[in-house]
Amino acid sequence: MKKQLGARNCLYPLPTVLVGAIVEGKPNFVTIAHVGIIDLRSVSVSMNRVHYTNAGIKENGTFSINIPSVRMVVETDYCGLVSGSKFDKASVFDVFYGVLETAPMIESCPLNMECKLVQTLEMPHHDVFIGEIVEAYCEEECLEEGGIDYEAVGPILFTMDDKGYWRLGERFADAWEVGKELLDKKRE
Amino acid sequence: MKKQLGARNCLYPLPTVLVGAIVEGKPNFVTIAHVGIIDLRSVSVSMNRVHYTNAGIKENGTFSINIPSVRMVVETDYCGLVSGSKFDKASVFDVFYGVLETAPMIESCPLNMECKLVQTLEMPHHDVFIGEIVEAYCEEECLEEGGIDYEAVGPILFTMDDKGYWRLGERFADAWEVGKELLDKKRE
Repeated sequence: MKKQLGARNCLYPLPTVLVGAIVEGKPNFVTIAHVGIIDLRSVSVSMNRVHYTNAGIKENGTFSINIPSVRMVVETDYCGLVSGSKFDKASVFDVFYGVLETAPMIESCPLNMECKLVQTLEMPHHDVFIGEIVEAYCEEECLEEGGIDYEAVGPILFTMDDKGYWRLGERFADAWEVGKELLDKKRE
Repeated sequence: MKKQLGARNCLYPLPTVLVGAIVEGKPNFVTIAHVGIIDLRSVSVSMNRVHYTNAGIKENGTFSINIPSVRMVVETDYCGLVSGSKFDKASVFDVFYGVLETAPMIESCPLNMECKLVQTLEMPHHDVFIGEIVEAYCEEECLEEGGIDYEAVGPILFTMDDKGYWRLGERFADAWEVGKELLDKKRE
């Protein structure tokens, strides 16, 4: 039996990321899980306008997305608990820069992307920043022949209902492959 | 050591969903994992213009998002292998309707959302449909006191690099909580 939940967002889990920007001349990071893929070259991050970081993204037109591993859950959650207006959150990390000069990235995060702001959607309470990826970085130990090894990355998956952080489980099937058995039946 | 990957999207894993729409008068479903949360009331789905379903979403201004469980991986992958222009993909599922008349939903998916199209971002190869959630539905056995039990839902998580489908792992920490130990230290 289905139960109606009202107009509720159920699109979870999503990967928890640390969004980096230069705000008032200093690097800052904020924890966001309301993210998405816009196309192969771009991503979205939805940030409530109460956040300190939004102004920096708008001013510089750049930001970074850093994907922390489960080992960094304390630091990651901390960056969602406090505002950069009161705490120097960048001091918790080793920060590095890539191609862009105003997209600070976190060394200890296994994956980083530096992004150029290409569009901002203005929702009632949120700025949705759409960023074009300029360059991506991966810890060598998280790479395998086919590309990124997400088991080694160990992303922190987020669900809103229970305010939960979850691990990635096992890889159990191949996309564009496991459905072929049904396709073969339909073709008969 | 970090390795540069070029302008590559690393924002994975994301939940695999079945996007439903009425196309040429009939329900159709397509598998999409390039999704995101725009705000508490809205979601994005990025769909290459080669897809048959895009025209139906544009025509009716509605679509559904259905979250399949790992038990449905064969049917889910099948809907990403074939086009609705050639195969009647809706015949694989029991279809139901909610408030909107043109947002077909899949009974066997533990979670469903019906959405009103509010904006379309035109990327070079993709239509990014932004939908406002009108109503959500959850299988009763996937609900617990705090809301949706994602362990019971069993979403199919997708990674592009290895074309992989993954299970959700264990819930290991509380958001807005586990970082407090670091906050206490910083306050000292």
